[in-house]
Amino acid sequence: MSGTAGVLARLPRTVEWRDGDLYLLDQTRLPHEVVVERQDSADQVFSAIRTLKVRGAPAIGVAAAYGLCVALRPFRSGTVAAFHDAIEREAAHLDAARPTAVNLGWALRRMQRRAAATKAAAAEELFAALVDEAVRIHEEDQRLCLGIGLAGAPLIAASSGVLTHCNAGALCATGIGTATAPMYVAHERGVAFRVYADETRPLLQGARLTAWELQAAGLDVTVITDSMAASTMAAGLVDLVVTGADRVARNGDAANKIGTLGLAILARHFGIPFYIAAPSSTLDFDCLTGADIPIEQRAPDEVLGFAGVRTAPAGAKARNPAFDVTPHALIAGIITERGIVRAPFDTGLSALFGRDNSE
Amino acid sequence: MSGTAGVLARLPRTVEWRDGDLYLLDQTRLPHEVVVERQDSADQVFSAIRTLKVRGAPAIGVAAAYGLCVALRPFRSGTVAAFHDAIEREAAHLDAARPTAVNLGWALRRMQRRAAATKAAAAEELFAALVDEAVRIHEEDQRLCLGIGLAGAPLIAASSGVLTHCNAGALCATGIGTATAPMYVAHERGVAFRVYADETRPLLQGARLTAWELQAAGLDVTVITDSMAASTMAAGLVDLVVTGADRVARNGDAANKIGTLGLAILARHFGIPFYIAAPSSTLDFDCLTGADIPIEQRAPDEVLGFAGVRTAPAGAKARNPAFDVTPHALIAGIITERGIVRAPFDTGLSALFGRDNSE
Repeated sequence: MSGTAGVLARLPRTVEWRDGDLYLLDQTRLPHEVVVERQDSADQVFSAIRTLKVRGAPAIGVAAAYGLCVALRPFRSGTVAAFHDAIEREAAHLDAARPTAVNLGWALRRMQRRAAATKAAAAEELFAALVDEAVRIHEEDQRLCLGIGLAGAPLIAASSGVLTHCNAGALCATGIGTATAPMYVAHERGVAFRVYADETRPLLQGARLTAWELQAAGLDVTVITDSMAASTMAAGLVDLVVTGADRVARNGDAANKIGTLGLAILARHFGIPFYIAAPSSTLDFDCLTGADIPIEQRAPDEVLGFAGVRTAPAGAKARNPAFDVTPHALIAGIITERGIVRAPFDTGLSALFGRDNSE
Repeated sequence: MSGTAGVLARLPRTVEWRDGDLYLLDQTRLPHEVVVERQDSADQVFSAIRTLKVRGAPAIGVAAAYGLCVALRPFRSGTVAAFHDAIEREAAHLDAARPTAVNLGWALRRMQRRAAATKAAAAEELFAALVDEAVRIHEEDQRLCLGIGLAGAPLIAASSGVLTHCNAGALCATGIGTATAPMYVAHERGVAFRVYADETRPLLQGARLTAWELQAAGLDVTVITDSMAASTMAAGLVDLVVTGADRVARNGDAANKIGTLGLAILARHFGIPFYIAAPSSTLDFDCLTGADIPIEQRAPDEVLGFAGVRTAPAGAKARNPAFDVTPHALIAGIITERGIVRAPFDTGLSALFGRDNSE
């Protein structure tokens, strides 16, 4: 990770494979405690994924790949046939930990394909091949993050202010994150700038996670409530807005954490460029526009309180869409691992990530 | 309160004078408990104002006027001279409860002027005059609210959606509130509509107070996080945005709870009319523009936690401006007790509330 070694050294790893053991950062304890847990069994990994100790699609995929290795360790001394049986059984088990996490199944299927393609005389050889595949998945994720960082870092000028939303950071991946990647690269290059982190109601990932990881890496970060973005922009403190994306449609419309659309509209009003940072794995060419992207509606309780503290009256109603869709017309550019794509997005995205690459 | 009797009957009174006793609704217990406390001493009233049991400039003014009567009850059987001394002493005491609440000092000075203008042979006569003045202050506040309601109600169409922010409701006044007044009048007239209440971080007055009072009065209210306003507008659910104001400058620029500026920009983007509801007491002709309005900066802890639960990491920084300023160009109209003022606001406001009226 040339250019970001210093930053990465200051960030606890979300997922780490060291001396044949898997370690996961327990993100449910953040920001108040930094707890790294060694994973000693398939059940422990399953539980860590299910209970959001590891979160964020890229990080979940890497954790699942290594998790499969943990699950298969007891079968290394058995027969090749028994090892293959164990792969199917353990992969199916892990895949059920979070049924909607797309990277989870993707990583496990890739591990299964590697096993199927490996001609091994002993189970130990198969195991070694799977560890190798997990390391590849891990390193690829880190390269995607770094690519986004290198592409986006020039957008951050000295003494400028960058506003971000939710956590599209190192904590949702295994490298330097997506929306945070340009910030980490710029910081490593000695560019001094300020970050404003929207707290991001209802689940407060900005206050809990983004503020924590940027602070841990030595960046200058200030938490604001989501309602303060306009005031912060009006005060001339914001020169760039960059967020992640959960899914990007073929025409460049981007679904991301609820509140992102509002930021894009405010940025347009104040003449501030609004960028989406997204690896190519986020592109969904099957969605022609944002209207094709389904929006998850979550339980009202998240809006009516926080951390068990109820704020609204008994019987109150709430809306709780988890995401909103920002039309491409409000997006200055999409920062990908292969460079920044600008309007017209459909041709730009196709040129960099044509169907052959995207599937 | 013709036309809103039904609504008022369903709302607990923030301030009530009944059979010679003062009763205050303890708003710090809302929305979880409805507790009305009889005020038996000057110290109790002082404490209720200081600890925000009664809040909102209009409600504080009315509470202080009645509170002075409570404080003076022990002096009714004494001499006129002793009663006058007690007025000065007790008014100074109450005035110190919240030094920055403009209606507090205003109401107490008005009570003192009434006492000075009353030729009384006995302390009991002076006391009666002061109770009469407090009732007048109370009724005037209710009339201001009703005037705003009557002026603004026609803006609310059947089956429409109204979005509001913070609590400019019955709970901050003694009548039907300011931003909520048009809603209560429309509801009383049988207009069926939906209200979206921004929860209003950091202090959550929308979720705690606005949702509670609208629900108590039988209106259809849905709580959203501040970050969901854009998504709710994009979904076509909002036809009107109306908020209160803490101060309105001569040119129509309006300071209100942090987040209001963002709503006004979003409303403009989606072609939704944005209105400010404000009694003439909110107009400050000494402020030529919003740039002249000082913005209170509050403690970072309010942003770094949520309802007593710490969310951000130790050592995190936060901005916490309590208000923002919405430029008049984004305001479709200012709903006052004398009608709706539209651009150009300077001439419109002066015509309705020329200096002779505003001072």
